[in-house]
Amino acid sequence: MPSISNKGKTMPASPIRKLVPYSEEAKRKGRKVYHLNIGQPDIPTPEGVLNAIRNIDLKVIEYSHSAGNESYRRKLVTYYKKFGINVTHNDIIVTTGGSEAISFAFMACADPGDEVITIEPFYANYNGFAATAGVKIVPVTSYIKDDFALPPISEIEKKITSRTRGIIICNPNNPTGYLYSQEELDRLKDIIKKYDLFLFSDEAYNDFCYDAAEHIPAMNLEGVENNVIMLDSVSKRYSECGVRIGALVTRNKEVYNTVLKFAQARLSPPSLGQIAAEASLDTPLQYFKDVNSEYKARRNYIVEALNRIPGVYCPKPKGAFYSVVKLPVDDSDRFAKWLLEEFEYKNQTVMVAPASGFYSTPGLGKNEVRIAYVLKIDDLKNAVEILAEGLRVYPGRI
Amino acid sequence: MPSISNKGKTMPASPIRKLVPYSEEAKRKGRKVYHLNIGQPDIPTPEGVLNAIRNIDLKVIEYSHSAGNESYRRKLVTYYKKFGINVTHNDIIVTTGGSEAISFAFMACADPGDEVITIEPFYANYNGFAATAGVKIVPVTSYIKDDFALPPISEIEKKITSRTRGIIICNPNNPTGYLYSQEELDRLKDIIKKYDLFLFSDEAYNDFCYDAAEHIPAMNLEGVENNVIMLDSVSKRYSECGVRIGALVTRNKEVYNTVLKFAQARLSPPSLGQIAAEASLDTPLQYFKDVNSEYKARRNYIVEALNRIPGVYCPKPKGAFYSVVKLPVDDSDRFAKWLLEEFEYKNQTVMVAPASGFYSTPGLGKNEVRIAYVLKIDDLKNAVEILAEGLRVYPGRI
Repeated sequence: MPSISNKGKTMPASPIRKLVPYSEEAKRKGRKVYHLNIGQPDIPTPEGVLNAIRNIDLKVIEYSHSAGNESYRRKLVTYYKKFGINVTHNDIIVTTGGSEAISFAFMACADPGDEVITIEPFYANYNGFAATAGVKIVPVTSYIKDDFALPPISEIEKKITSRTRGIIICNPNNPTGYLYSQEELDRLKDIIKKYDLFLFSDEAYNDFCYDAAEHIPAMNLEGVENNVIMLDSVSKRYSECGVRIGALVTRNKEVYNTVLKFAQARLSPPSLGQIAAEASLDTPLQYFKDVNSEYKARRNYIVEALNRIPGVYCPKPKGAFYSVVKLPVDDSDRFAKWLLEEFEYKNQTVMVAPASGFYSTPGLGKNEVRIAYVLKIDDLKNAVEILAEGLRVYPGRI
Repeated sequence: MPSISNKGKTMPASPIRKLVPYSEEAKRKGRKVYHLNIGQPDIPTPEGVLNAIRNIDLKVIEYSHSAGNESYRRKLVTYYKKFGINVTHNDIIVTTGGSEAISFAFMACADPGDEVITIEPFYANYNGFAATAGVKIVPVTSYIKDDFALPPISEIEKKITSRTRGIIICNPNNPTGYLYSQEELDRLKDIIKKYDLFLFSDEAYNDFCYDAAEHIPAMNLEGVENNVIMLDSVSKRYSECGVRIGALVTRNKEVYNTVLKFAQARLSPPSLGQIAAEASLDTPLQYFKDVNSEYKARRNYIVEALNRIPGVYCPKPKGAFYSVVKLPVDDSDRFAKWLLEEFEYKNQTVMVAPASGFYSTPGLGKNEVRIAYVLKIDDLKNAVEILAEGLRVYPGRI
């Protein structure tokens, strides 16, 4: 029997997936499982998007342009302009989810053996895209004691080698919810410029900012116009993860033309998803206001409730819908598994994402979990109650 | 300005795309361009598929399972059974088009520097997927004088090295339309077994067979159950290229589990496309009969008409909807460009795909083009008339 590749052997499994069999087992036992572990929002997709799908008048569902439908790209130009981002439709490549945008960016900008720096904890799938491209992710640690602010630039600088091709940030951040300030982005800009690196800026959560905090697009950093590659996605913004539409945006023509060649090999992004995404751009402002206030209320609730549990610390993030939370446990992987396998409270339990999967430095995140507040407040209340009880009786409590 | 990767620099451009600016220019001049160059069928998508999309009753367009919806995979099991293929839904990973199935197969089975043998002329995008995976495509030439039959196994054997990981075939073939016989597949099976290689079998055109010829699935070859990876797509079968749904099917559990990790990194295949693809499986038999007889009539027409042009030779392929045709020209790249740039006949012209892009041995295919018979017969008649006139007056005629 022929054997798989070394690349396949080292391909990391998703840190959350390994818990799935345990949650399925818990459900088979008749237990209700509250999912605080996943980023699948429960917010309805805008009605206008669903109607656009219901009203398709195609005869043939054809390939689109490899860079995406021009009509959609032109509307994206207008959308980005609202944030002060000046680009043309020829700076945009529509991708199959934000995932493909990240893959394309790595493949176009880095060779096997090259390195990309990121701030840990970081979105675990970066590991998968890096493995696919043969790229090594080099972590610079941010700490819960600093509420996951950008580490000192000197820490980043220490990690730069001759193989460093760029820095990937997620802003607002998954998994921490941290939102970078202008000052932090300026510091990143300086180092990008100094070492002539790419800045891969994953801005899938740009619409999720609270407390009047403002998201600053990396595309607006001055003097690094040819270094910045924005990685975008409609998945969370319009609660339509399944349409698989994202975008790679860059003014760097060499990068653009190279990404286009990768895009041409896979022919086209999904046509039905593009219809949905294009219709999404007409979503009334009220939808975002409602969604934003809902998430803000959830965040306020869960941050306060978690911080009331003895031994727990939850920062109050300004963006996205996640938080990395410190728990009084010996090992959050063991704790998360225990919650599903052995624990129940009124025949219910809760599923959390152990934070170790979001770090690449071994040993970090052992007493942290990522919480996604994508449930209704009543469900969050139950989930927190269950978690508190779990922490109370967990044998590995420290 | 940071520079792109070497991988990006060597990423091949699509051989057809480079002609697109010339066809656009011809259209700007007001010329009608008949497209014999592309595989975008004009056949309507089945009405049941369009209705399934129109009738979606989702509230949230969510991610699906990374391997695809279980309901769809279970229906695929029944579909494959019709061809004698016995698999379970746990042998199937739903992919974003057949393209992603090919990429995943290369990445799971081959490391950078490894080699995959193919029979040239071959589907040009294999180059792109190979470049993405860092894999080298090693061609074994098939010849128009043999109507592109499988070359002698000794020719394939000559190309096997310690880095050879497998053989990729496309059956029925794009670009030649060639359909492999049981005897040819048995020969491939023997060599696969002898050297313990993977057989990547791209069967996207399995439904397009003519003259009572039968497509033989590689999954049905006995004794190589762990070697075969079927790469499938709904794009052509139901004329829904834009839904971007394919499948990777294998009984090799190590390969399956590895591909699943790549699939998890990109979260899920398109949800709307999966709704379309699942509905496609209920398409009435009459649809395929109609489509098949339409393509057969087109093939019969174009093969005969092309062979009537002096100096032209067109094999009569048994499958797909392509043929590689020999033309009396000095250089088919130059000829194809000339047709668009300088030639017109009654203010019309024709676009063909130069075959050089389907070979990787330099110099081959110089007097061949690929023809896709995806136009109505009346349009094919005009296209052939224009092509004949073009060949008559082309300055590089030989």
